[in-house]
Amino acid sequence: MIKLLDRVNCPDEVKKLSNEELETLSVEIREFLIDSLSKTGGHLSSNLGVVELTLSLFKSFDLEKDKIVWDVGHQSYIHKLLTGRKEMFNTLRQYGGLSGFPKRCESKYDSFDTGHSTTSLSAALGMARARDIKGEDNEVIAVIGDGALTGGMAFEALNDVGFNKTKMIIILNDNQMSISKNVGGLSSYFNKIRVDPKYNKLKSNINTSLKLSNTGKRVAYYLSKIKDGIKQVVVPSMLFEDMGIKYIGPIDGHDIDMMNEVFKKVKQIEGPVIIHTITQKGRGYELAEKNPGKFHSVGAFDLESGEVISSASENYSKVFGDTMIELAKEDNRIVAITAAMPDGTGLKDFAKEFPNRIFDVGIAEQHATTLAAGMASQGLRPVFAVYSTFLQRAFDQVIHDVCIQEMPVTFAIDRAGIVGEDGETHQGIFDISYLNQIPKMNILAPKSLGDLQIMLKWAVNSNMPVAIRYPRGGDILKDIKPLTEIKYGKWEKIINGEKIAIIAVGKMVQHAILAKKNLEKNGINPLIISATFVKPQDTELLKELVDNKYNIVTIEDNMISGGFGNSVLMNLVELGFENKFKALGFKDDFITHGAVNILYKEAKLDGDGIAETIIELQG
Amino acid sequence: MIKLLDRVNCPDEVKKLSNEELETLSVEIREFLIDSLSKTGGHLSSNLGVVELTLSLFKSFDLEKDKIVWDVGHQSYIHKLLTGRKEMFNTLRQYGGLSGFPKRCESKYDSFDTGHSTTSLSAALGMARARDIKGEDNEVIAVIGDGALTGGMAFEALNDVGFNKTKMIIILNDNQMSISKNVGGLSSYFNKIRVDPKYNKLKSNINTSLKLSNTGKRVAYYLSKIKDGIKQVVVPSMLFEDMGIKYIGPIDGHDIDMMNEVFKKVKQIEGPVIIHTITQKGRGYELAEKNPGKFHSVGAFDLESGEVISSASENYSKVFGDTMIELAKEDNRIVAITAAMPDGTGLKDFAKEFPNRIFDVGIAEQHATTLAAGMASQGLRPVFAVYSTFLQRAFDQVIHDVCIQEMPVTFAIDRAGIVGEDGETHQGIFDISYLNQIPKMNILAPKSLGDLQIMLKWAVNSNMPVAIRYPRGGDILKDIKPLTEIKYGKWEKIINGEKIAIIAVGKMVQHAILAKKNLEKNGINPLIISATFVKPQDTELLKELVDNKYNIVTIEDNMISGGFGNSVLMNLVELGFENKFKALGFKDDFITHGAVNILYKEAKLDGDGIAETIIELQG
Repeated sequence: MIKLLDRVNCPDEVKKLSNEELETLSVEIREFLIDSLSKTGGHLSSNLGVVELTLSLFKSFDLEKDKIVWDVGHQSYIHKLLTGRKEMFNTLRQYGGLSGFPKRCESKYDSFDTGHSTTSLSAALGMARARDIKGEDNEVIAVIGDGALTGGMAFEALNDVGFNKTKMIIILNDNQMSISKNVGGLSSYFNKIRVDPKYNKLKSNINTSLKLSNTGKRVAYYLSKIKDGIKQVVVPSMLFEDMGIKYIGPIDGHDIDMMNEVFKKVKQIEGPVIIHTITQKGRGYELAEKNPGKFHSVGAFDLESGEVISSASENYSKVFGDTMIELAKEDNRIVAITAAMPDGTGLKDFAKEFPNRIFDVGIAEQHATTLAAGMASQGLRPVFAVYSTFLQRAFDQVIHDVCIQEMPVTFAIDRAGIVGEDGETHQGIFDISYLNQIPKMNILAPKSLGDLQIMLKWAVNSNMPVAIRYPRGGDILKDIKPLTEIKYGKWEKIINGEKIAIIAVGKMVQHAILAKKNLEKNGINPLIISATFVKPQDTELLKELVDNKYNIVTIEDNMISGGFGNSVLMNLVELGFENKFKALGFKDDFITHGAVNILYKEAKLDGDGIAETIIELQG
Repeated sequence: MIKLLDRVNCPDEVKKLSNEELETLSVEIREFLIDSLSKTGGHLSSNLGVVELTLSLFKSFDLEKDKIVWDVGHQSYIHKLLTGRKEMFNTLRQYGGLSGFPKRCESKYDSFDTGHSTTSLSAALGMARARDIKGEDNEVIAVIGDGALTGGMAFEALNDVGFNKTKMIIILNDNQMSISKNVGGLSSYFNKIRVDPKYNKLKSNINTSLKLSNTGKRVAYYLSKIKDGIKQVVVPSMLFEDMGIKYIGPIDGHDIDMMNEVFKKVKQIEGPVIIHTITQKGRGYELAEKNPGKFHSVGAFDLESGEVISSASENYSKVFGDTMIELAKEDNRIVAITAAMPDGTGLKDFAKEFPNRIFDVGIAEQHATTLAAGMASQGLRPVFAVYSTFLQRAFDQVIHDVCIQEMPVTFAIDRAGIVGEDGETHQGIFDISYLNQIPKMNILAPKSLGDLQIMLKWAVNSNMPVAIRYPRGGDILKDIKPLTEIKYGKWEKIINGEKIAIIAVGKMVQHAILAKKNLEKNGINPLIISATFVKPQDTELLKELVDNKYNIVTIEDNMISGGFGNSVLMNLVELGFENKFKALGFKDDFITHGAVNILYKEAKLDGDGIAETIIELQG
């Protein structure tokens, strides 16, 4: 029998299916996703949770004109499957392949590129207002998770739309999770709604009757309560109503019949409306249902055991987490802060050891940063563990609340440099540029795992704002001697050489060492320096290089613009430098998704690329 | 008779006063503030609104250990008056004088530096958690306006504290205003509470009885309703309760008796509590009561007429606003967005002309940016008018939602460079650095008022992300010929010269022209170039300068680090430049408050300073 999934390839074809066929299709989609992602890896749990929701949206709306904005975007696989991209799933998140996020350049059905959480309401509201100004009549739908709602900009958008009453539909995809278990007052509030007997009774009734017979009548009865002045259909929720937004829910986000009926009715409502759907992350794959966090973003895995197929090695997040435990044992001023990423940042064990000294604030980097500043003002030594790309959200707070006040806050910046498969929105390639310009900030980068421990210890004892940036994963070279002492603003000579000095940041030291082998074949014997401190710079050592007439090459896994090399050059000019200079890093463009090693090669920042550039420079 | 205000100079002395004396003191404080600010200028309206609130806090809490965090901070004048800084009020906001914001370096009673809105809840929560970890017992109080609550990070903090139940006191200072009239669903919600007959009845009862007799009994009766499981005392507010935060209110924020009683009771509550106070901005100065926006941040003014004493001249905000109207008449794709600053950004008239094409989103720069991106995705040409320093809040959204997707959003960046009296937190000195590093972003800067119009027209028609940055106020030189045409990425030669080229950004062109007179006396005749485009750069013209062996000096009213000069130097190195180079701008430190011209002089970026540096360089 030909599968439905093999037949449908665009939204129009989904629309023609009956609810029963959609149920069948949902089973096929789950099979497809589990099988396909077991080979490529990807965001499994969240996509398994929104199969029926996506199908209902495709059934109820007209994607030729209606716009769906998928918040955070990693749950858009089903959307991609049903908009002509099925055949590309074997290339998912690979270089040159299908992106793991919505991309306007991939499909006309992708209305907005997302990646970081909590942007969907604002983007959708913009689209809705554009529609009204142009006098058009399409629907705009934002699908946002309860985790993403913990980000402040969601509230900014709710405040705006609740006031101005722009017509738009918000689907709250409530699965009780960010990447980890969701936190926050809002989460408790949703939980209260979820466990309300009225919701559960309704749900079980409907689920039973679904199996027994045509549920049309029950759904009709249920929906008869939805009137013009809709209030809470099932459980009272004044929170959104107080903000001026109509609330419907909660409804079962795996019940296609129910959702189709609700979506149909909802179109008739003027102004903004929020539909609260309850879904289950990982639905349909038992291992993911039990452990949705593990399968949130997963590498290729074994279907039976669920074990991830990868060469697990010691990595920076783990070393960070272990070091935090050690430091916290000795120093009770130390506390940890995470923005919904206790696992990803390596703080899982710390949380077990010191449950009262870790604060998971939700997807709220702004708040996390100022919270840290408040703690530091009272003598604590907070460490905010955060991915490079997410700290972008707190740029202003880093300036004001930490640096102007010179608060002793440590930023443990994970996933600096290329992160790989997540692509444009997740590469950690701006942090040196945006932090370097901030007065009073100090920036360090470990050349290998061995440096991270001593740097972290130094940072929490420095009494200054400090950022330590380190990459995703582990080391390439295993035999690098760790720093034994941190001297403020001093760099480290790694390998002696002559005529040309390579000053590299963090893991790029390893790339430089790899380059050295090629260079030696070409008679070039570079001095290799690790820029222990990205800021402040070691001007004494720079002066030594200038005096000894070295050519100088800097390497960083960051934008060239505003980056480390840029600052080195400024210092060199002040020092009367007259030799050759080259700054290696990322050119003025965004960096797509793909394997880390491929992307470094593309950017000519792998050993070969670096060697090639230097040979040319010395030529 | 000696005034109370002359007697009290520290929190302890305020504590000893009776409620009646506090009433008298409040009258004296208002007189003092109105008189003092009429000479120095400053944030009048917001301070007149919190006289009684501040006095009640000083009476009820122990500032030797309790911490007050004043959100946004410009309402902290009474706090400053009563913590030993009365004699410095004649230096308010002047160079070397009293800051207009809380400063930890000014007084031990200033617990946190604020400046941008919406940070207080996070900072206070950090302090409260530090207290708990250290096992101390002080109170932590955040005072936040209803305007500041429209910023998303307030919600992030509420979500956190409502979940974790950390004991802290939040005073909602509800005056229905941001700087302008407040907007948003939350604002409507507060309004519903405010106009509830129950609140008004209570308020008028209490106000009457206050005049008639000792109100102790009535207050006691009122407060008897405040029990352990406090719900709404007067008007139901489930919004905060739903988030897990106890709510009390609304109460009259000018009623000292009432506040003192409430504050006393509130200390006994475990966990977070929000006290909703209603205050009147500008209270006690009739002109400010009628027009609180005008007296929000005011220059020296005439006491009788309220007229501001200043040399009003044409300014960039006005030209921007006028141009927007002209452009919008011709092009119905153009819409304006402001984050609670329709007046400051010059959009007041636009709002009258096109009420349906301007969107005031509250203090919500993140949302504003992504809203603009959403609009742009559907063919509109949104212009987000925002101060340089406030756009810092939307750094991530500029990258993701505008630049990655190459959305045709125009950022009209007002108050770039030194803004003066507001100091560290408001100087617009980072924007070139943080925008320059973002791929696909284009940055322009008008050398004088005359350029702004053509640049704006170019921007909205460019189909690209564009930032136009311009300074506070108007021009120094009036006879500068405006650009007649924008050529993409091309600079403009303003004055011919030889041997040395000055490439200046925006208004710094005027400073360069001022420098030229001094330089000529020293036999230096510089070529002066206006960097019409900060990004992309005019590498053709740079090549010409390199080929003709010019020394090169760049001038920008931005950080040197990551700034324009930095990028110029990188390009010069690529072009084989071998002459002298100097980048002028702000060194690696924050810039205090004071008059704009003093601060430029201090930074050696006025005509004299620039000339001096160049003479040295050419020496």
